[in-house]
Amino acid sequence: MDSIIKKIIEFRDERDWKQFHNPKDLAISLTLEASELLENFQWKDSSEAIKQNMEQIKDELADVLIYSLMIAHDLEIDIESAILSKIEKNAKKYPIDRFKGTSKKYSEERE
Amino acid sequence: MDSIIKKIIEFRDERDWKQFHNPKDLAISLTLEASELLENFQWKDSSEAIKQNMEQIKDELADVLIYSLMIAHDLEIDIESAILSKIEKNAKKYPIDRFKGTSKKYSEERE
Amino acid sequence: MDSIIKKIIEFRDERDWKQFHNPKDLAISLTLEASELLENFQWKDSSEAIKQNMEQIKDELADVLIYSLMIAHDLEIDIESAILSKIEKNAKKYPIDRFKGTSKKYSEERE
Amino acid sequence: MDSIIKKIIEFRDERDWKQFHNPKDLAISLTLEASELLENFQWKDSSEAIKQNMEQIKDELADVLIYSLMIAHDLEIDIESAILSKIEKNAKKYPIDRFKGTSKKYSEERE
Repeated sequence: MDSIIKKIIEFRDERDWKQFHNPKDLAISLTLEASELLENFQWKDSSEAIKQNMEQIKDELADVLIYSLMIAHDLEIDIESAILSKIEKNAKKYPIDRFKGTSKKYSEERE
Repeated sequence: MDSIIKKIIEFRDERDWKQFHNPKDLAISLTLEASELLENFQWKDSSEAIKQNMEQIKDELADVLIYSLMIAHDLEIDIESAILSKIEKNAKKYPIDRFKGTSKKYSEERE
Repeated sequence: MDSIIKKIIEFRDERDWKQFHNPKDLAISLTLEASELLENFQWKDSSEAIKQNMEQIKDELADVLIYSLMIAHDLEIDIESAILSKIEKNAKKYPIDRFKGTSKKYSEERE
Repeated sequence: MDSIIKKIIEFRDERDWKQFHNPKDLAISLTLEASELLENFQWKDSSEAIKQNMEQIKDELADVLIYSLMIAHDLEIDIESAILSKIEKNAKKYPIDRFKGTSKKYSEERE
């Protein structure tokens, strides 16, 4: 993962693009790429989308990851510990005994 | 990275949530999390946002990564090769000599 | 419609919020509200979403419209003529004889 | 406004697209158009974006409004009353005396 981040930053530095990459515009760019990924599923169910658009889905997911890794790099966020700590928070928010087999959100849940 | 993906899938399997996680709804969820990340920058410049919301930014970026890794897992996309192949495509779309130091998009560029 | 826009601007002026409402942050806010609308459909099909979340769907759609009308107001865009001119462009992009009954995008279409 | 909605629905009916337009996919489409609007502000401040991209901003805002009006039409939401009722809710959430001149969210506000 470190060597991938290094390549992403190299790509940026060769083009001297750091000057445009403030965190706010990177966060904007991340939502734009997530939308482009979603566009592959517009008017389709999942299986049609995958059948027709697998190449684009892969490319757009890669763009989402590239911007995510850039943001992590620039804000000095350790990805691994950020994910693990978020999984723990989610586990507390969604305890197994109350949320097993239901797609309800914790805000919708009533005991 | 593999051990993190394993933890994410474990979290899901313990709650029996695979049944809801079709790729289309995962792509929707990814855009929702990207928006929640962006929300931390609403009405603020980057430095204010980081000063006030660093904890939430870290958490929302983690959620973006969690959904991205889930989509990659379910669609059997190899993250590393997807990112590297996308960087190559981007390098062709944005050759250094024409795009160094400019934030123009390839669609805007006129020689 | 004019009287509604007037009410929206009044609401803003009473709170002295114009100072935060530059067009870029309004465009960000619009995507955030569109995501909150979409969130009501997460993990659900349309009919379940409508059955469970109709009140929230109405509220979030209203927020999308409020921000859209604010942007139009601030940029002096005449909504009616903007919509009519866009419908004409879409009609050229999607001529009836080639696109009737198909959900293909013009970029996907091959004759 | 009624005559505009009529034109939008006419455009759709001529292409026989109602069959694809379930509310969930319309909500997805609305977020995609909101993102395309936001894309005009990527890497730019508001004034540069307006100077360079005013035509596209107008077109994308029109697309956001077209999808919003379609959703309202299909779900039989009265736009005017939805907006007015949401402004009232927002007024309760953001009372003038506590929120005048601040961009804080109600969730951030501490007295």
